[in-house]
Amino acid sequence: MKATIERATLLRCLSHVQSVVERRNTIPILSNVLIEAEGDGLKVMATDLDLQVVEHMDAASVESPGSITVSAHLLFDIARKLPEGSQVSLEAAENRMAIKAGRSRFSLPTLPRDDFPVIVEGDLPTSFELPAKTLAEIIDRTRFAISTEETRYYLNGIFFHVSDEDQPVLRAAATDGHRLARFTLPRPEGAEGMPDVIVPRKAVAELRKLLDEKMDSNVQIDLSASKIRFALGGDGGVVLTSKLIDGTFPDYSRVIPTGNDKLLRIDPRTFHEGVDRVATIATEKTRAVKMGLEKDKVTLTVTSPDNGTATEELPAEYNSEEFEIGFNAGYLKDILGQIDSDSVDIHLADAGAPTLIRLNDDSAALYVLMPMRV
Amino acid sequence: MKATIERATLLRCLSHVQSVVERRNTIPILSNVLIEAEGDGLKVMATDLDLQVVEHMDAASVESPGSITVSAHLLFDIARKLPEGSQVSLEAAENRMAIKAGRSRFSLPTLPRDDFPVIVEGDLPTSFELPAKTLAEIIDRTRFAISTEETRYYLNGIFFHVSDEDQPVLRAAATDGHRLARFTLPRPEGAEGMPDVIVPRKAVAELRKLLDEKMDSNVQIDLSASKIRFALGGDGGVVLTSKLIDGTFPDYSRVIPTGNDKLLRIDPRTFHEGVDRVATIATEKTRAVKMGLEKDKVTLTVTSPDNGTATEELPAEYNSEEFEIGFNAGYLKDILGQIDSDSVDIHLADAGAPTLIRLNDDSAALYVLMPMRV
Repeated sequence: MKATIERATLLRCLSHVQSVVERRNTIPILSNVLIEAEGDGLKVMATDLDLQVVEHMDAASVESPGSITVSAHLLFDIARKLPEGSQVSLEAAENRMAIKAGRSRFSLPTLPRDDFPVIVEGDLPTSFELPAKTLAEIIDRTRFAISTEETRYYLNGIFFHVSDEDQPVLRAAATDGHRLARFTLPRPEGAEGMPDVIVPRKAVAELRKLLDEKMDSNVQIDLSASKIRFALGGDGGVVLTSKLIDGTFPDYSRVIPTGNDKLLRIDPRTFHEGVDRVATIATEKTRAVKMGLEKDKVTLTVTSPDNGTATEELPAEYNSEEFEIGFNAGYLKDILGQIDSDSVDIHLADAGAPTLIRLNDDSAALYVLMPMRV
Repeated sequence: MKATIERATLLRCLSHVQSVVERRNTIPILSNVLIEAEGDGLKVMATDLDLQVVEHMDAASVESPGSITVSAHLLFDIARKLPEGSQVSLEAAENRMAIKAGRSRFSLPTLPRDDFPVIVEGDLPTSFELPAKTLAEIIDRTRFAISTEETRYYLNGIFFHVSDEDQPVLRAAATDGHRLARFTLPRPEGAEGMPDVIVPRKAVAELRKLLDEKMDSNVQIDLSASKIRFALGGDGGVVLTSKLIDGTFPDYSRVIPTGNDKLLRIDPRTFHEGVDRVATIATEKTRAVKMGLEKDKVTLTVTSPDNGTATEELPAEYNSEEFEIGFNAGYLKDILGQIDSDSVDIHLADAGAPTLIRLNDDSAALYVLMPMRV
């Protein structure tokens, strides 16, 4: 294998794939990226056995085709430090890969191409497209609620499923048992009959990074009950393939309250800032912020045995009976940070009941937050 | 105590003093800052028993004088989160301090003013002034070489001493046994007869941060053999007082080579980048970069059992005999990063001898680097 590529192109490509590669690996080949030169392009692939990313680069000139694997982080660090604008020559020979650019020469150890594990996608019968912007919004609005508890592995991702309500919809949901985030959009063509799937947290994170550079394009999504593939930017683009979480996502629709009769309408930014301020004195043990609701007013209070008390009064629209309810300040801030408007609707029932938060009744995103005893 | 102050002024002041306060303290009062209202000003003081910083703020309006101590980090975090432009009212009453700003109210636990430890400065017979810019440069050029080995506590700071050479000078030096940095300036008026002092690393770091905001002023320095005081910005400014390290700094002048007969003259930036690039493949075990010196050429090489090899050729001015010498790549980069010019003089003797690095023979800063076996 021998090929030449612009340093900037190589660097951008490696920055996409290298974060898939874990820093510590017991299996040496998993520290490597696969580099394949063919035609007039270069293909770079990285995997952690559950998730793989493949990127094609057109800009390379290929002198002799072939393929080899080298350390992902090492190659990325080298590309990062090479002079801007330099042409990088990659050449495989005698269990080594030679890298040349400017006055620099590197010789890196390699592992054979055939040892590199590739995820067998199998048949991916469901196929549909989503605009990159939409997919990014789905992720942004839900990923913060993904559980990090490894024992509840079926909550360690975003759940996608189709449903028939007034109209057919595609839904994305994430929850950790304390809060739930759900995003709804019209069912894309081709998604009918789609199996329920849970996309793992790491695949979500890597996909979200890739979307940033392709915001104006469409993403082709192909999936089965066990694998999902996201193709970004058409030919010569990036393809991310992930195994799906093999588990059953709980029937979350039952925790979405429908009869909450007390409506608090408030500016989410003012509310966020207020919660953030009073929570300054909260410690690990006392993360609860108490909301006292009165006619057109919310009083936030945090009391800490070590750090004293903090209160803040906020103007709001509220016309139901007075009562108090507590929430985890961090969870409340996470949700409020999602609301891009000057008003948010908070539907409450009582101090012990799940609370529904959404921009308004028409919004695609919906959040449920469990209260805390205060 | 009752006083009102602009949030921005309070925040700037707390940002100066709070980093003196350690995050974890077994003695509760050391987590606090002392706040003293008197006349039409507010004084804020923080200490870790070895180092104290006092700042005066003129901008406050004082309704009733008095003093109190509250948690430094808590007060800083609160000030940070208060709305921009708000007026902050501080009031002490019944073992609490009330903080009010906008719609927010905080009540923080306090500890009595009399429990707050103040460093007894004693007599500080040596007094001189230095421009803040000069003091900042002394620190910048030497602090990287300060040892972090706690067992060699006498190397854990910058050593200041006066000396009579062709003319009287003030010298600052730091070393960790592998490299030495020395900065020389004409002896300031008042520094004659000054005792040798070692200013601890933390005092150096805090002082350097404070200097950033006072670059156009002079710093008044008063010291004895056991304490040093830096007064920045005159009245209403900041005063940093530190205990000095009670130890003897080694006679470092003996390690500064005087007879190194091989001169390498090279562009420090190109050299730095080259070392950085070849060091990419260096691991914790192999931090050495080998320099091969030939007529007007340096070849850098790093060899790693795990990561392969890297080489780079650099143009240079060199007219002595060919030989090879190794250095710790990180130490070499630290020193090259100090040289703000397109040429640096590297005086070598042989592969085992200390190497002298300086911009040129007239430069105030001088570096000595021990070689590594390669």
